[in-house]
Amino acid sequence: MHANLTTPSDTVDGTLDDAAIARLFTEARTHAAFDPRPLPVELLRRLYALASLGPTSMNCQPARFVFVASEAGRERLLPHVAAGNQPKVRSAPVTVIVARDTRFYEHMPTLWHVPDAGANFERQPAHAQATAQRNATLTGAYLLMAARALGLACGPMSGFDAEGVNRSFFPDGRWEADFLINLGYPAGPAQRPRAPRLGFQQACVLA
Amino acid sequence: MHANLTTPSDTVDGTLDDAAIARLFTEARTHAAFDPRPLPVELLRRLYALASLGPTSMNCQPARFVFVASEAGRERLLPHVAAGNQPKVRSAPVTVIVARDTRFYEHMPTLWHVPDAGANFERQPAHAQATAQRNATLTGAYLLMAARALGLACGPMSGFDAEGVNRSFFPDGRWEADFLINLGYPAGPAQRPRAPRLGFQQACVLA
Repeated sequence: MHANLTTPSDTVDGTLDDAAIARLFTEARTHAAFDPRPLPVELLRRLYALASLGPTSMNCQPARFVFVASEAGRERLLPHVAAGNQPKVRSAPVTVIVARDTRFYEHMPTLWHVPDAGANFERQPAHAQATAQRNATLTGAYLLMAARALGLACGPMSGFDAEGVNRSFFPDGRWEADFLINLGYPAGPAQRPRAPRLGFQQACVLA
Repeated sequence: MHANLTTPSDTVDGTLDDAAIARLFTEARTHAAFDPRPLPVELLRRLYALASLGPTSMNCQPARFVFVASEAGRERLLPHVAAGNQPKVRSAPVTVIVARDTRFYEHMPTLWHVPDAGANFERQPAHAQATAQRNATLTGAYLLMAARALGLACGPMSGFDAEGVNRSFFPDGRWEADFLINLGYPAGPAQRPRAPRLGFQQACVLA
């Protein structure tokens, strides 16, 4: 793929080595308990910089991220989090609100080479909404993978009251919460054994 | 994170090395042209096996994947693809239809430890629909990252007629298309320079 990438993590066919794949996939687990050490802002900037490189439709980049890292921020978030998820938020040095900007298309003139791309979204609200939703979720997944690539543990959660979070964090209604990710260095291995996955025959079709 | 992972791609703090991060993020690009060599089914199985390990809400795993790899499959897909994307589909040895199973919750008894989890989704159709949508999209992003980790190039696309794809590939209405990913070995470097990304200040907030 890139002839100049010949450092150890590249095997001859461009596949990442087993340790990298373990960190991203095969050994990676959802974490509920975190080491208390805080995450420096520079690490959050690096995390966003990597996640932002993932592909979005017409480079529209609707994802927005609130890094809840202060005590005040956490206390503002907690009432909107499902009871079973509150201890996880309390444990994590950072909880990310993955959100979408409903007016992401205002940035299109600087993001995409086709003139009028922004106006096209503005004229088609349902299309804009679906685009914001899909691409913000995708970028949330890129952020999760980037966090793992940077040695962090993640605990994504959808057990929360999105409308409550929107009222508290996004009162002007422009951003909308999609899901949450607890983020930090792991306190130890994940506590439950990995739950089963659907097999290829159950989830995939060749056509 | 894992004391036993001490192979070269791990630095001392658990961050992947630069070559791995380049392959996944900093050098990775959306590709529109692919090498003609086919992707073996065993590689698609490996790809799904990795993607399936990514986290989903309550392990619900609503994502389904149609690997369109045959001439017949491609001819069935092409009429529903936007004109500008058709040459990309013709170039790719595989185009993946990332889909969601609207009745994913029927698998919950084998996927999640809480009895009644499936019935709860069945009783709340809007919640089930939102869960299917978000988590299938997330898993599509995991698949894209897994493909890059396996040395493949990706070209995700949402320029297609989802209803047309649904009618042709999912006539019983149970699965629904989310987006497409062209997949293959790259024919060369990406043809356009990388489009700009929003900066941390534009997309992120600390709270």
